[in-house]
Amino acid sequence: MENNGKQILGRLAELGRTGLDAEGRRMRLAASDADREGRDLVAGWMREAGLRVVVDRIGNIFGIWETDENKAEAPVMTGSHIDSVIDAGRYDGCLGVISGLEALKTMKEAGIRTKHPLIVGVFTNEEGVRYSPDMMGSLVYAGGMAVEDALASVGTDGTIMGDELKRIGYAGSVRPGFVTPKAFVELHIEQGPIMDAEGVSIGAVENLQGIHWQRITIEGAANHAGTTPTRMRKDAGLAAAKVNVFARELVTKSGGVATVGTIAFEPGAVNVIPSRVVFTLDLRNPDKAKLDSDDAAIGAYLKELEKSDGVRITSEHMTCFDPVPFDDGICRIIEKSAQNRGLSVRRMVSGAGQDAQMLARICPTAMIFVPSVNGISHNPRELTHDEDVINGANVLLDVLKELAEAE
Amino acid sequence: MENNGKQILGRLAELGRTGLDAEGRRMRLAASDADREGRDLVAGWMREAGLRVVVDRIGNIFGIWETDENKAEAPVMTGSHIDSVIDAGRYDGCLGVISGLEALKTMKEAGIRTKHPLIVGVFTNEEGVRYSPDMMGSLVYAGGMAVEDALASVGTDGTIMGDELKRIGYAGSVRPGFVTPKAFVELHIEQGPIMDAEGVSIGAVENLQGIHWQRITIEGAANHAGTTPTRMRKDAGLAAAKVNVFARELVTKSGGVATVGTIAFEPGAVNVIPSRVVFTLDLRNPDKAKLDSDDAAIGAYLKELEKSDGVRITSEHMTCFDPVPFDDGICRIIEKSAQNRGLSVRRMVSGAGQDAQMLARICPTAMIFVPSVNGISHNPRELTHDEDVINGANVLLDVLKELAEAE
Repeated sequence: MENNGKQILGRLAELGRTGLDAEGRRMRLAASDADREGRDLVAGWMREAGLRVVVDRIGNIFGIWETDENKAEAPVMTGSHIDSVIDAGRYDGCLGVISGLEALKTMKEAGIRTKHPLIVGVFTNEEGVRYSPDMMGSLVYAGGMAVEDALASVGTDGTIMGDELKRIGYAGSVRPGFVTPKAFVELHIEQGPIMDAEGVSIGAVENLQGIHWQRITIEGAANHAGTTPTRMRKDAGLAAAKVNVFARELVTKSGGVATVGTIAFEPGAVNVIPSRVVFTLDLRNPDKAKLDSDDAAIGAYLKELEKSDGVRITSEHMTCFDPVPFDDGICRIIEKSAQNRGLSVRRMVSGAGQDAQMLARICPTAMIFVPSVNGISHNPRELTHDEDVINGANVLLDVLKELAEAE
Repeated sequence: MENNGKQILGRLAELGRTGLDAEGRRMRLAASDADREGRDLVAGWMREAGLRVVVDRIGNIFGIWETDENKAEAPVMTGSHIDSVIDAGRYDGCLGVISGLEALKTMKEAGIRTKHPLIVGVFTNEEGVRYSPDMMGSLVYAGGMAVEDALASVGTDGTIMGDELKRIGYAGSVRPGFVTPKAFVELHIEQGPIMDAEGVSIGAVENLQGIHWQRITIEGAANHAGTTPTRMRKDAGLAAAKVNVFARELVTKSGGVATVGTIAFEPGAVNVIPSRVVFTLDLRNPDKAKLDSDDAAIGAYLKELEKSDGVRITSEHMTCFDPVPFDDGICRIIEKSAQNRGLSVRRMVSGAGQDAQMLARICPTAMIFVPSVNGISHNPRELTHDEDVINGANVLLDVLKELAEAE
């Protein structure tokens, strides 16, 4: 069985053309007019395919294909998101939604009658650019956050999530989590460079890295860069640099990754020793014990620095997600399906957060990755070759079919 | 002979009250209305003391005390600046101007007739906050920059230096450098913590550190902080951190100082590897060979980093001043004068740039330092105790007298 690959590629292009701003940047921020435009398009395709469309209170859209025979069974769910970052590419999220819808359509049109219903979901606000937290729709669906709290989220533009959802016509009445899937599978671009570098077609994602974000503030003393001898310095900028170097050494041993992505110096003059430096540290590791141990090692190093560098350091955890192990059984189905189609496949770790990590709280879950050229994502240059799109969608189709046909 | 210490302290307070902005911050930026207010006050004091006031084309003000007997001789010059940084203290620069004026006045009123004329100068735009370069007035006076180029300098507020000087009434007609001094001595606060920490009253400044400023740009690749394995990263922020750590190690060996005072990350997101980092490096050393060698070592390290970290690095020198050795004979007169007054004295290196370094190009020059409490400067908390102000001014008086009386 094969998806209509042309239709998938055409719909990726069509959805990709919605939500362009005045400067031509793709910007389908959650619950914006641009998001509505994308939602209307996708919900229309769902109806056109004969799916029953349900919108829940957090705005998640579900296209449900069930029959009188299977409607009492737990459904197999797929899906992803269509909201985007600022100046986004056209694959992130959209690939999973469009391919999931296509898989249901392909099975339906082929006259297959599966043992379990199938659902394709569009989860609200995965990116978290306008409203916090990210992965909001799937988090609420999985019971990790009260819907009222999520709807009360204040956007970067001062708007209220709930008001905006209502305004764009996607404040549904159905309770998030209204159905607990038998399994969840999400097709997504890798958003990283590994598969492209190794020439692998399909990733069976067995784990999602744990993520610890912290904001670290170092306070030293702003003194004259020329007149203050080294021994009398309390250089907050140098201490921050040491943390960056230390974190890299740490994750090189633990197999995680560490990133200092933002930093601000005060007072910020060429000839003044920085008195106050605030920076963020993003630590990730697929192994919870290693992530916790790296985090603790950073904490101990900050204490050391206070003594050695005469600075005061405070740190505040902004985000702490444990690693999410995915379902090995589904990963094996993904591998088998890839092999049957003659595609190279490898086990992968998702470096990014995904809706699937939330669904994993309530049902067996895994993800299928396809390569991102040069690992570029969250950028208009984001690209997955047509062949990889089609291969990934066909593997998704196989996996959904096998899951929906099994007991 | 003693200065009128009370008058010096009173004038420091009075000049310190000029140029306060709406928020009460002391802000006598060069050629601003606030600068005019300070200039009018000081020029008035000069006239009141019976000095002849001359303003040159770059706005330097000179209070000249010469007699028919000595006017053919080369004058002994003292002076400093009264322009300030944003939110400044009241000692930086003003101490040297007010004490210099007081020394001339004290000698004049005592009926002394020196062999050489004496001049107290107020040099334009030492701080360089509004117009570049800093130490502009003394640089032009010493012939290091054409007056036309300096007058054409565009301010951070878009104004032209020459227009603003005219507007505030201090665009004089006299050629900068119209007289070459026999010697130049400047009294200044240390602006560093050494004398306060050691309890020393007088610094005989024998050297001014060389200063190399460079702006370093590191270009890596902006990739996802979660999905990009360490081996595939081109982390411009980490490379910058390594430069900071390396520079500190370097100057710990060479006896210089190194400061990264400004830094900017692009794109600047918690979960994106920085693709472009621009930062400044301020390297100083009193020894030219060591400064040049440190600078070269940084250059070589940047080349290494390009290979090890997969980044591209460009660096641009913004400022390169060689160390300025001051006149040993004047330093010995400073030491002798301090000892005669029972004051502790030590040889010092000036960590900061000073007008004296420009005058050293055209005549024997040295500086007298007095302690800055906790080394704080360029800050309203800048403080030199009254006793130290008075001691410093008396040593300046002695030194000027000896220089002006000698052949």
